[in-house]
Amino acid sequence: MVSKPKSDIEIAREARLKPIEEIAAKLAIPADRLYRYGPTKAKIDLGYIASLKDRPDGRLILVTAMSPTPAGEGKTTTTVGLGDGLNRIGRKAMICLREPSLGPCFGMKGGAAGGGHAQVVPMEDINLHFTGDFHAIAAANNLLAALIDNHIYWGNEIGIDTRRVSWRRVVDMNDRALRQIVSSLGGVANGYPREDGFDIVVASEVMAIFCLATDLEDLTARLGRIVIGYTRDRRPVRAAELMAAGPMTALLRDALMPNLVQTLENNPALVHGGPFANIAHGCNSVIATKAALKMADYVVTEAGFGADLGAEKFFDIKCRKAGLAPDAAVLVATVRALKMHGGVAKADLGQENVAAVEAGLANLGRHIANVRKYGVPLVVGINGFTGDTEAEVAAVLEFCRAQGVDCFLNRHWAEGGKGIEAMAARVAELADSGQSNFKPLYPDGMRLAEKIRTVARSIYGAEDIAFDATVAKRFEQLEADGFGNFPVCIAKTQYSFSTDAAARGAPSGHIVPVREVRLSAGAEFVVAICGDIMTMPGLPRVPAANAIHVNEKGEIEGLF
Amino acid sequence: MVSKPKSDIEIAREARLKPIEEIAAKLAIPADRLYRYGPTKAKIDLGYIASLKDRPDGRLILVTAMSPTPAGEGKTTTTVGLGDGLNRIGRKAMICLREPSLGPCFGMKGGAAGGGHAQVVPMEDINLHFTGDFHAIAAANNLLAALIDNHIYWGNEIGIDTRRVSWRRVVDMNDRALRQIVSSLGGVANGYPREDGFDIVVASEVMAIFCLATDLEDLTARLGRIVIGYTRDRRPVRAAELMAAGPMTALLRDALMPNLVQTLENNPALVHGGPFANIAHGCNSVIATKAALKMADYVVTEAGFGADLGAEKFFDIKCRKAGLAPDAAVLVATVRALKMHGGVAKADLGQENVAAVEAGLANLGRHIANVRKYGVPLVVGINGFTGDTEAEVAAVLEFCRAQGVDCFLNRHWAEGGKGIEAMAARVAELADSGQSNFKPLYPDGMRLAEKIRTVARSIYGAEDIAFDATVAKRFEQLEADGFGNFPVCIAKTQYSFSTDAAARGAPSGHIVPVREVRLSAGAEFVVAICGDIMTMPGLPRVPAANAIHVNEKGEIEGLF
Repeated sequence: MVSKPKSDIEIAREARLKPIEEIAAKLAIPADRLYRYGPTKAKIDLGYIASLKDRPDGRLILVTAMSPTPAGEGKTTTTVGLGDGLNRIGRKAMICLREPSLGPCFGMKGGAAGGGHAQVVPMEDINLHFTGDFHAIAAANNLLAALIDNHIYWGNEIGIDTRRVSWRRVVDMNDRALRQIVSSLGGVANGYPREDGFDIVVASEVMAIFCLATDLEDLTARLGRIVIGYTRDRRPVRAAELMAAGPMTALLRDALMPNLVQTLENNPALVHGGPFANIAHGCNSVIATKAALKMADYVVTEAGFGADLGAEKFFDIKCRKAGLAPDAAVLVATVRALKMHGGVAKADLGQENVAAVEAGLANLGRHIANVRKYGVPLVVGINGFTGDTEAEVAAVLEFCRAQGVDCFLNRHWAEGGKGIEAMAARVAELADSGQSNFKPLYPDGMRLAEKIRTVARSIYGAEDIAFDATVAKRFEQLEADGFGNFPVCIAKTQYSFSTDAAARGAPSGHIVPVREVRLSAGAEFVVAICGDIMTMPGLPRVPAANAIHVNEKGEIEGLF
Repeated sequence: MVSKPKSDIEIAREARLKPIEEIAAKLAIPADRLYRYGPTKAKIDLGYIASLKDRPDGRLILVTAMSPTPAGEGKTTTTVGLGDGLNRIGRKAMICLREPSLGPCFGMKGGAAGGGHAQVVPMEDINLHFTGDFHAIAAANNLLAALIDNHIYWGNEIGIDTRRVSWRRVVDMNDRALRQIVSSLGGVANGYPREDGFDIVVASEVMAIFCLATDLEDLTARLGRIVIGYTRDRRPVRAAELMAAGPMTALLRDALMPNLVQTLENNPALVHGGPFANIAHGCNSVIATKAALKMADYVVTEAGFGADLGAEKFFDIKCRKAGLAPDAAVLVATVRALKMHGGVAKADLGQENVAAVEAGLANLGRHIANVRKYGVPLVVGINGFTGDTEAEVAAVLEFCRAQGVDCFLNRHWAEGGKGIEAMAARVAELADSGQSNFKPLYPDGMRLAEKIRTVARSIYGAEDIAFDATVAKRFEQLEADGFGNFPVCIAKTQYSFSTDAAARGAPSGHIVPVREVRLSAGAEFVVAICGDIMTMPGLPRVPAANAIHVNEKGEIEGLF
């Protein structure tokens, strides 16, 4: 290559963005139902969205992926590219994405608004404060935290056990120093010292609630049902007892309107909400997805991490709870990631290695089988890299043929929607085919431990789950308290089907240890922690922040 | 009274707000230089503001007040009313206010966007997230905090003394549990445990810097100069050494554009920035004030607390540093507050008590004399309450006449701009008269302790200041490090000229103890702490949050 390839931010800056009113007009949204944030971002009025309820729904298409590796998969770029591709072939399509978390922008990850010629824009805004949704969520979370300690300070009428407060504070920053703290030090005026800690905003239950709520009323009800901890005699204490649901809703009112932006090809995108995909369900808001289904014929959305975590939660939590029935799925793979799953080190990814690709296909194969268990028809989309060789790609195509799955080599990163038209046509066809027969993996009525066992065996290929008496007692308590009908939200490493991050490919016969169980009573799921789950990342030795600045033209540099 | 008077939020909701483009048009701001946040809020492009630099400046009018009491003074309502009054009498006027802090809305204070018929709107938005400025300031503050602990974690090459890190984290919430914490607990992966704490956002030096910066470049330079703590051998460590200024500026870029809203009478208002008036200088942003002076003939702005704290800092910090020369001042008084300064308890304020008013006038008199020391002509504005008696008001008018100061009984709270026209006419006349001969109280070159002594004697009526050897050494160190030419920012109780909050009226001959000295190297002032200064409020037993909620129409209730 002669010239250096352009960075994401350079490509984004060259884009000809249309005024957001024009994007809205493509969806027939009247300009006066938009709540604009500058010229190219807008929130859509919730009353307007509610007024669409009698329209038929469009087709729902999930983009998920094989198990992630440091080589990168490109789930977001595929989602953006597919949306653009569908529009290019004359379909009325829009995409739904999660909002990026601000904290990681300054750490290792950089931005999260797609890449290359498959991005949502304005990328700097989307990656930084955007429309302030995450700040609102942080404020709501921290108001509840302040109300808890304030209640204790003024006499603790409810009898909250200060050792059993599970509600943590949040900040949208990678800040390891806040993971574990002792708060309320300094004497009588500052309250009762206790162990406490901060999570990053995306790990907050408020984020999960925000993304599962169907309207303001449901949001308030869910916020009120949050269990913040226990009394000394183990009675769960709800946020409603602290009168927190009202002011928390007031803080979240504007944020709950979904955010409309555009792709580089000026197609509409809703970017709204962004919970973690381990301790939460990892999908954009239900409000955005449902609104999109009323406004477009095809809605492409993504779920976090690989299909074992992201798609499983999309199906078993989001779709189950929101009454959504996906019509088709795309499983994203890269030759590079397949090679890593086949045992190649990151430094050697530049070398052709067909045998490694073939070995790594076991990972893809397991994910294909898993998606089929939900009754959703799928295709595989290879996110093409310039270094991929013909023989390597051929190995993937051959494997998929044997599995009876259509597979496409996509070039959306380099070419935008044009590079993914063939897959777009097939996905539209699949979505329209009526083949989908979606059903969640387990029924609501199954015991909690059995739900986890079902996911572990069916999706992870595990032999069984394991847990000690404390966890067993916790399951019993949760069922006794009436939370037994919740779906489970399993938090484990995203890098492997097992709980060992280093076990690539498709390990099986392993045991999944359930180390801890947490209740998200407002979000309505029970979190099973299986392994070390980080709810507050740290910054690396050389943080991405070092390169971020505003140039003399007032443009933000260093986001990638 | 037969019917219950309307609440601020009810009055605000009945207002006929104009689209923000129409308000901007009154100032000849082109619509494409607005960055809209919904229909009635917008930020104004900094490039546009810079393009106005050759226009002549309008007149600058400061609204300040006597020493505050629980009876309330109405500085913000007077500022709003005076702006409306000036417009009513045909002057092209706009106002500049501070943004309210979100935290206190849920505590005791309620909203801070004026009151009655003298408000800026949309009041719910302004009181809650507004355009996200405070969230951006919090993020910038907390990014620096994370970078500090991250630097220490990865080997501490700079050699930061973990016992001498003065940079604290912030949150926009009244949360006493965070005043004093121990952070980085939990083992090796979480860093080195140390004592730490959170302030409320408005107490952050980033807020002060934000409000004193003249443009993005100056903002970056100031952020880089922040001293975050010291090395073991007492060398000050700057934020620039942590490469923090670039990403902090990126976080603040959009926030730095001033926010345009409107009064209930559809007159333009800039509401931008909001530092504390004790440990910081308590005024809206320099960028907003300077922009307003280019766009309007009369700019009315306010400073925090009473004139001893707010006006002193407005004059000696903001005007000195920004090269502003105020043309006139309004000193706000209420009969109720005068009675409290005259010794009446809050419960007895309903009774006529002319003697108490007369006794309390000593407080007003001291403030009148103080403002005159800066060479700025002034009037007194009585913020009228329905319970004030004719005899009480007459006592105030008589006192002011004796002092040679015009005094007006204003009714803007009940009547809007119509109720303050007479004062508006006189203020415009004073501002146009060329009488103002503004000069700060002390020269830059004066020693730090001497600057504090000068303010204490001249403004507070104190006999002297007092400090121990530690503080003396700190002054010497700061002067040796090159910070001796900074103005001083004195943090003391706002309720008294002395450091005893209970000493009402006009105490004199007291000693002002300087207990601690802090450096705000980026904001460019030295803070002298004289008394107990709270940088993180707590919530009361029954927080205002309890009543805040969203009603069935989607409107926010309970803000007052």
